[in-house]
Amino acid sequence: MDGMSTDAAATTLRAPRPGAELLAEPMRSRWSPAVFATDAAIDDATLESLLVAASWAPSTGNTQPWAFVATRRGTASYDVVVDSLSAGNSGWVPTAPVLIVAATLVGEHDGRSGKGDYTFYDLGQSVAHLTLQAQAVGLHTHQFAGFDHEAAARGLGIPASFRVLAGIAVGYVGEDAHVEAAAPEDADRHRKERVRRALAETAYDGTWGTPLA
Amino acid sequence: MDGMSTDAAATTLRAPRPGAELLAEPMRSRWSPAVFATDAAIDDATLESLLVAASWAPSTGNTQPWAFVATRRGTASYDVVVDSLSAGNSGWVPTAPVLIVAATLVGEHDGRSGKGDYTFYDLGQSVAHLTLQAQAVGLHTHQFAGFDHEAAARGLGIPASFRVLAGIAVGYVGEDAHVEAAAPEDADRHRKERVRRALAETAYDGTWGTPLA
Repeated sequence: MDGMSTDAAATTLRAPRPGAELLAEPMRSRWSPAVFATDAAIDDATLESLLVAASWAPSTGNTQPWAFVATRRGTASYDVVVDSLSAGNSGWVPTAPVLIVAATLVGEHDGRSGKGDYTFYDLGQSVAHLTLQAQAVGLHTHQFAGFDHEAAARGLGIPASFRVLAGIAVGYVGEDAHVEAAAPEDADRHRKERVRRALAETAYDGTWGTPLA
Repeated sequence: MDGMSTDAAATTLRAPRPGAELLAEPMRSRWSPAVFATDAAIDDATLESLLVAASWAPSTGNTQPWAFVATRRGTASYDVVVDSLSAGNSGWVPTAPVLIVAATLVGEHDGRSGKGDYTFYDLGQSVAHLTLQAQAVGLHTHQFAGFDHEAAARGLGIPASFRVLAGIAVGYVGEDAHVEAAAPEDADRHRKERVRRALAETAYDGTWGTPLA
């Protein structure tokens, strides 16, 4: 594009998107890459900080229904997750050095019980805190639902009282060389323009249908 | 307590809690006050930025199932929310200048349909982005579920295809004078020590039950 370098164009397609420039970090710059830097690892302290962030999320009545199993490249547990991936996710997900499986309490466990729709709502909040902590320390994340949840639960020992909802790929964002080495569909996904519905369709002022002042 | 001022003790009970000092902002300092500064308003641009942050959250297949109705003190809509509050929430919630009702798609609407448990998970993520944006610009939030969801939906015009899950009280944290003027149970709630389950009970390394290295 005339007058715009490839890098600037790529940034525009990712973050911050128009309208999001006014957001504070780490929300401003967060986006979900489809190509991670395959040669970069995550140190133990950094990984732990993500899970600490998840644990300090608010939850309904402070029930904290969430549970996480973190797996690192080169371990049998990581391979359990990779082996469970849907076809569409099996190319890009393994570019991340850490895959975290996120589950939430839906039955009875240690005297606690999952609370209806809120157990999913609370897990979502906790994962958001995890992903934003990751973003704040220079990592990126990309969540995925397309994997065999029961196979992953079985392979990682997650009890039946917890329901697996999401995987979280965590790593450093892929550089140009990684993107060029990726499968074309993953490179396309990585470069794809991020879009959202107009604010006027999701947020109202006082009454449903009234745009914000 | 000897050697510790009242302010330092209060901070210790709120944020960051031990173990959370290593988190990045705004996760590090986030907590949910039960007393807001009753005399402080929120300007339109700041309120809009919270809803923009919510809209840029990730969601399952980018479905963005969330919807928000923001109400401001002194409007009929705000009173709809206040009138719907449970007894336990009717004292502290109205100390906040803005109350946002969060709902998510569970039926059919405009050719879109709510997707099982993920509609709640996605709403939770969106609300987390909203609350962390608030924290980043000096506001605080406190979510509540205890209100008549159907009465609030009816009063605000939220269609039946959306399910109301949460209210979000947004404002500036109450100062000492506000806390002293609050009902004793709300002041206690405001000052209460924040606690979480041990990380070893919620986050595992490779296999369920194995603490992080």
